Amino acid sequence: MCPAPVDAETPRGYIIPIGGGEDRAKEMQIHRKFVELSGGAEADIVVIPTASMLEETGPDYNRIFSELGAGKVEFLPISRRADCDNPDFAEMLDRATGIFLTGGNQLRLSAILGGTLVAQKIRRRNAIGVPVAGTSAGASIMSEHMVAGGSSNSAPAEGNITLAPGMGLTNAVIIDQHFTQRNRLGRLLTASSFNPFLIGLGIDEDTAAFIGPDNVFEVIGSGSVTVVDASELTHSSMWDARRGEALSLLGLRLDVLGEGCRYDLTARQAFPPDEHMAFCTLPD
Amino acid sequence: MCPAPVDAETPRGYIIPIGGGEDRAKEMQIHRKFVELSGGAEADIVVIPTASMLEETGPDYNRIFSELGAGKVEFLPISRRADCDNPDFAEMLDRATGIFLTGGNQLRLSAILGGTLVAQKIRRRNAIGVPVAGTSAGASIMSEHMVAGGSSNSAPAEGNITLAPGMGLTNAVIIDQHFTQRNRLGRLLTASSFNPFLIGLGIDEDTAAFIGPDNVFEVIGSGSVTVVDASELTHSSMWDARRGEALSLLGLRLDVLGEGCRYDLTARQAFPPDEHMAFCTLPD
Repeated sequence: MCPAPVDAETPRGYIIPIGGGEDRAKEMQIHRKFVELSGGAEADIVVIPTASMLEETGPDYNRIFSELGAGKVEFLPISRRADCDNPDFAEMLDRATGIFLTGGNQLRLSAILGGTLVAQKIRRRNAIGVPVAGTSAGASIMSEHMVAGGSSNSAPAEGNITLAPGMGLTNAVIIDQHFTQRNRLGRLLTASSFNPFLIGLGIDEDTAAFIGPDNVFEVIGSGSVTVVDASELTHSSMWDARRGEALSLLGLRLDVLGEGCRYDLTARQAFPPDEHMAFCTLPD
Repeated sequence: MCPAPVDAETPRGYIIPIGGGEDRAKEMQIHRKFVELSGGAEADIVVIPTASMLEETGPDYNRIFSELGAGKVEFLPISRRADCDNPDFAEMLDRATGIFLTGGNQLRLSAILGGTLVAQKIRRRNAIGVPVAGTSAGASIMSEHMVAGGSSNSAPAEGNITLAPGMGLTNAVIIDQHFTQRNRLGRLLTASSFNPFLIGLGIDEDTAAFIGPDNVFEVIGSGSVTVVDASELTHSSMWDARRGEALSLLGLRLDVLGEGCRYDLTARQAFPPDEHMAFCTLPD
């Protein structure tokens, strides 16, 4: 699904994939920034815990975002497709100023939300300025092409990744999470070289990419975001490798971005932290 | 230690780091190629099993290289520094046409061989044309700067790698082994960004880089060799990162080379497999 059309007058909302395992007890830097972008004391945050099978997931996030000063937080108890037709949920999303997708299983999330009114509302709200954050499975589903599964600890190889259609908030990137912790470079390289149009974002645990309306993201958290850019590949054996054979991919660009670094997804260019630049400067 | 001087008339011998876990029972493609480069039926191969604590390591390789048609194979039972003064061993190395360093612990290898006559002989024989192969620990020790240890599953970080002086057959690269299998990209990125002069070679299991006298290597085996080139870094937080903090490294180049791919370590350029190019073409 392509991103919902953005009104030239209204900048798109932040898209905030988080690599999972983020700090939810101490500084809570990532969640704090999300609450701030959602309006702080004026925020009306809707949590979608559908990826998780745990009953406490929704209430847990209610507590976290309330502690961080969000004006209002609710979660949508969606556990099957029929729940997505609930008109109350549509109404809650219509007034949401921030939407949060929890971790769990991204295929559960896409299989339950895909093509429903809830998915449509999330896309439309984001297109008119509402920030959408997601952690782990909730990060994976944000892109048009979603990493549904695959092998960790694997060299790049045609069969080591399973893609599925995601929610399509962005079609510029493909997102992998728990990146360093689960050794997922191989499968992200596979994904990027399937079609070098896609920029691969490998997001570590406790780390987030805050993708702004201008398609520039900034890194917040204790780990890194690894950016794989295959657009200058000089050789790829992707199309003629035998099944299971190690791929050859020559001419990849790699940027490892720690906190404060920025990356322009349009220009495919990385920038070091800039002390003179305020975080999350929204257009006037 | 810098590489021993090479006589312009006599090309240096192949340097053959192997990522560990190579096939030692079926095709034995890597060992077969090493025996061939060592002279096949005319070969006189000396195995150095010092990295290993297992008594069978030396005899095992004797059997493998004999089965593959090597004219003569012997191993040097070196388990302490005093063994390295044995004049018989020096004589055996003086007539060796191929030298093989087994796996085990590379610090054991460097601590026992370093600065001895045996190490000197290996370096000098290689400089006048004798191929030297090594697997796992035996691969690590080949470079001037040796990966002695470090963290797997780690993002690039100042403290995640321990370097020690190696045998210095080459000073162009730093070699890491069991690369994909043990998720060692993070520490190799750290090493390459300590000093971007060094090219990082991450060698997978059952895979070898055959580095020719012209400093071009070809990949043989079922995995890949990942080349990290940090020479075009536009930003590195290496020197001012706080201990344990995730590093930012912007502008890395990465090549993933499968079997048959070549890489020119002088020009820092990767080449796809070339069907018209014979493997291991030695200068006329």
